[in-house]
Amino acid sequence: MKLTISKSYLNDSIGHVSKAISSRTTIPILTGIKIEATYQGVTLTASDTDISIQSFIPIEHNNQTVIQIQKAGSVVLPAKFFVEIIKKLPSQEIEIEVTEQFQTFIRSGSSDIQMVGMDPEEFPVLPSIEENHVLSVPGDLLKTMIKQTVFAISTNETTPILTGILWKLTNGELKLLATDRHRLATREAAIEADPELNFHNIVISGKTLNELSKIIPDQNTMVDIVVADNQVLFKIDFVLFYSRILDGTYPDTSKIIPTVYKTELVLNTKQFTEAIDRAYLLSREEKTNIVKLITKDEKSVEISSSSSELGKVTEGLDVDMMTGEELKISFNSKYMLDVLKVIDSESIHIGFTGAMSPIIIKPNDHVSSLYLILPYRTTN
Amino acid sequence: MKLTISKSYLNDSIGHVSKAISSRTTIPILTGIKIEATYQGVTLTASDTDISIQSFIPIEHNNQTVIQIQKAGSVVLPAKFFVEIIKKLPSQEIEIEVTEQFQTFIRSGSSDIQMVGMDPEEFPVLPSIEENHVLSVPGDLLKTMIKQTVFAISTNETTPILTGILWKLTNGELKLLATDRHRLATREAAIEADPELNFHNIVISGKTLNELSKIIPDQNTMVDIVVADNQVLFKIDFVLFYSRILDGTYPDTSKIIPTVYKTELVLNTKQFTEAIDRAYLLSREEKTNIVKLITKDEKSVEISSSSSELGKVTEGLDVDMMTGEELKISFNSKYMLDVLKVIDSESIHIGFTGAMSPIIIKPNDHVSSLYLILPYRTTN
Repeated sequence: MKLTISKSYLNDSIGHVSKAISSRTTIPILTGIKIEATYQGVTLTASDTDISIQSFIPIEHNNQTVIQIQKAGSVVLPAKFFVEIIKKLPSQEIEIEVTEQFQTFIRSGSSDIQMVGMDPEEFPVLPSIEENHVLSVPGDLLKTMIKQTVFAISTNETTPILTGILWKLTNGELKLLATDRHRLATREAAIEADPELNFHNIVISGKTLNELSKIIPDQNTMVDIVVADNQVLFKIDFVLFYSRILDGTYPDTSKIIPTVYKTELVLNTKQFTEAIDRAYLLSREEKTNIVKLITKDEKSVEISSSSSELGKVTEGLDVDMMTGEELKISFNSKYMLDVLKVIDSESIHIGFTGAMSPIIIKPNDHVSSLYLILPYRTTN
Repeated sequence: MKLTISKSYLNDSIGHVSKAISSRTTIPILTGIKIEATYQGVTLTASDTDISIQSFIPIEHNNQTVIQIQKAGSVVLPAKFFVEIIKKLPSQEIEIEVTEQFQTFIRSGSSDIQMVGMDPEEFPVLPSIEENHVLSVPGDLLKTMIKQTVFAISTNETTPILTGILWKLTNGELKLLATDRHRLATREAAIEADPELNFHNIVISGKTLNELSKIIPDQNTMVDIVVADNQVLFKIDFVLFYSRILDGTYPDTSKIIPTVYKTELVLNTKQFTEAIDRAYLLSREEKTNIVKLITKDEKSVEISSSSSELGKVTEGLDVDMMTGEELKISFNSKYMLDVLKVIDSESIHIGFTGAMSPIIIKPNDHVSSLYLILPYRTTN
């Protein structure tokens, strides 16, 4: 293999695939990035077995020559050093030459780097996925949907299925759902999809989806999603992102979401967030994060937290609307803040069915998302 | 104590004094910030016994009322919670009221905070320092002098004196010096000072000086320095910064700095930095940071590092000037990068007196700073 490549294109591509490299892998070949040169372009691949990312650099792009291939071939180079040194090379033009036993020479300006390469035959082969049905989702919408649910995944590895986000597609309605048994987040969106394309119980690791989000550009990109037996492929421009589907059956959560409330509040999102945040500061010192919400009259609520060592925070807050019974309830303020951070509505609707029943938080101006928090049982 | 105070002034003041709060203190009163209100203004104080910082807020500033004092008094409030909650209060106006047993009420907008205060009588009394001789140094110069030396302090607590920077003032020449026995950094500057004012063997903790740097504004501020028996006081606008002087005698380093060289190089700072940085990337993987520099001919040098596992980096670099003998020397590339990061000159002068003698690095266009690195003994 011998080629000359533009530094900025190579760096962008490395930036994408390096998200699949785990620093904790014990398999030497997976500490590397596979580089494959053909007369069409250069393909970089990295994999940690759960995620595999492939990025293609064409020899020409926007009428500019990006790569000059002198000899096709491939090699696997140690990722950490490769990623860092390419960024710091002095010239925009980088020559890469692979010689006997995968000895690799990288030349740029007055820099001459010799690297011990590995055999590309040892690199895992990516799954082949038949692209019969493709779901196209706008990139920014997909990022938002992930952001609005991923915080509610479980971090407890003893229930691996809950460390993922559940994906469902029914009649052109895509729904993402996450829960850690203490809280739940869902987000739906209508997608232009082939009516024959439906799926359910597709669960993808939340960590993986966070990495995917980082690769999706902020605007004007469609992400093509292909679901296979045990893999999902996301296609973003020149990047292919493969993720394993988590094994197991996702628990049925439809029955725990109440639809009738005893008390309903409509609150200004910003004011409520700031009040909860101040109460959280104190509750955090107690390690419990418990805050209490009580209705005062028909126009206001009181939010409070207390610590025997530090003191007490009491917040008064006017409500936009209140209906139903008087209420006194305690909940985890960190969980509430997580919801408030991702809610995209100036005011929110909160529904209560009692001091020990789930709290339902929804944006007040649309029905695409729903959040649930279980309250705390407190002594007073 | 009862007063109303502007949130932004209180926050700035808290920002200054909170740098003296150690999260690891075992003395409860030192986890707090002392607040003292008189009819002139409010004074905040924090201390970790090594550093004490006091910040004064006048009742009026720039013709604006900053504080309204209703009742003088003082209290000590738990720093961590106090610092965070003040930042997040909803209104620009904050009322603080201390009642019986130092119960403190903080009110702002619809927020009502109750805090368990501590007895200000328990708070350590700041040293009284006689201001007979004051040295005034421009703030930006002082920050630069600290930055250009502090990286060379020792982090090894077994020789506490070397964890500090040595300050000397002789005939209006202020000199800062730091060494960890493997490298040394000095910076001098002419200061308009009382000719009677001279000091030597004043050693101040490097960590403390880093904290001081953060408080000094970037421009247009004079820092007044008062040296007492075992304390130094830095006065910056409304802030008093007290630091302990380290015990012990700083080693004499004057004899280890060579003045005659066998080989001298003048190099472009940026090009040399980038070449060393690339060689460092590889040397770091070997944990040794060793790079080798050899003179090639009268016009260029070669910088290289190698790793048995990863490969080799070789950098060619043209020199602006070279005199003396041929040279082959190895040194710690991290130490060299630390020097290159703070050198304020487009080209540098490096002097060598042999493969096992100190390397001297100086800016090429002025003589205010000097850096020394001991070379490595290598087998080849």
